[in-house]
Amino acid sequence: MDQNELKALVGQAAVKYIEDGMIVGLGTGSTVRYLVDALGERVKNEGLNIIGVTTSNRTTEQATSLGITIKDLDEVDHVDLTIDGADEVDPNFFGIKGGGGALLWEKIVNNASTKNMWIVDESKLVDQLGDFGLPVEVIPFGASHVFSALEAKGYQPEWRMDGDQKYRTDEGNLIIDLRFGKIADLEQLANELIQMVGVVEHGLFLHRVDTVIVGRQDGPEVLGRELSK
Amino acid sequence: MDQNELKALVGQAAVKYIEDGMIVGLGTGSTVRYLVDALGERVKNEGLNIIGVTTSNRTTEQATSLGITIKDLDEVDHVDLTIDGADEVDPNFFGIKGGGGALLWEKIVNNASTKNMWIVDESKLVDQLGDFGLPVEVIPFGASHVFSALEAKGYQPEWRMDGDQKYRTDEGNLIIDLRFGKIADLEQLANELIQMVGVVEHGLFLHRVDTVIVGRQDGPEVLGRELSK
Repeated sequence: MDQNELKALVGQAAVKYIEDGMIVGLGTGSTVRYLVDALGERVKNEGLNIIGVTTSNRTTEQATSLGITIKDLDEVDHVDLTIDGADEVDPNFFGIKGGGGALLWEKIVNNASTKNMWIVDESKLVDQLGDFGLPVEVIPFGASHVFSALEAKGYQPEWRMDGDQKYRTDEGNLIIDLRFGKIADLEQLANELIQMVGVVEHGLFLHRVDTVIVGRQDGPEVLGRELSK
Repeated sequence: MDQNELKALVGQAAVKYIEDGMIVGLGTGSTVRYLVDALGERVKNEGLNIIGVTTSNRTTEQATSLGITIKDLDEVDHVDLTIDGADEVDPNFFGIKGGGGALLWEKIVNNASTKNMWIVDESKLVDQLGDFGLPVEVIPFGASHVFSALEAKGYQPEWRMDGDQKYRTDEGNLIIDLRFGKIADLEQLANELIQMVGVVEHGLFLHRVDTVIVGRQDGPEVLGRELSK
């Protein structure tokens, strides 16, 4: 199976964890697209009654086009289960997110959610996080000074671009990608980045996920504390 | 002297620390208005050649109307001296800022600045920070969940309002004012708030200021490591 087939199968496996009446956080990215497609089918065919909360304008557009009811996060008091993708996942279910640029809203929805599941193809599993690079979301005002500070730390920052313009997140912020290979101390780096003035969030997701479904050649594998199905 | 006279005198005392050729950070607020007025006079009368970097759109408007050259923070590689106000200042020169809603840009400019000075009237000096309240700037997306989390901690959050709308900062974010009186452990609270997902910044300014000029009835008093004048 190619990578897209693996992604489609994990998306279809994950949709089974969504139950009638749930408030469901919907992530962003190519694997989540398959999940949202499958969820649209269940809403249409089974009359599944759920409320979706999305993590990006892209996912909102896809979900509403499929007839899935979407509410703003601020219109609900909690989220039951959020299903999202990830760019790298380590054996502790710590991960890096933000390749798609939606890390801030993804982390906010994750944080508001009782349970969190990631769906990834097997290429995303790593022994140690970092080779993917680490996205950092920064306030536009004075962002060049954050960039310089990251450079001075040896973190090899690069501006996320969108053509010849700096990429803008859904929140209007900028993204700086750090590229310095494997990360020795995740907690230390996470703390260092969030303390920097002008940094809004970073792509390290630590202690945030209960279950990971991995798309493998011989079928989806569920890792971690399994949720009721 | 009334409070406005005290503010005017500290603004006029502070402007003497601005030297020809400097890149100067200009804060926000009623005391800084007097500083900017006095700086405009020096530019006009002495031909003082400085570049200003502002911390709010309000200050930009005032400064440009007075003929002060203003650049974006991203157009300069450093700031020599930033002069700003504060809402409360304790004996360690730790302070609370954000009453005017500009705390994020103020902290970013402070952080980019080699030296930082605060100018306050004597009513702003306190033994222990907190009675003013503590502004926290949050991302609009999912902000009600940050509000609930602050409420659950017992921090008595209130939305900053602008008429019947939630106040928007220059960066488009929201402000939640915490009102729980004196703060026992400043460092612990600063760390706790910045680690909350959705929080961009908070009004605690710790270890950020070299000099404070206080407007007293018998004239401005310079506290702390005095800058060259």
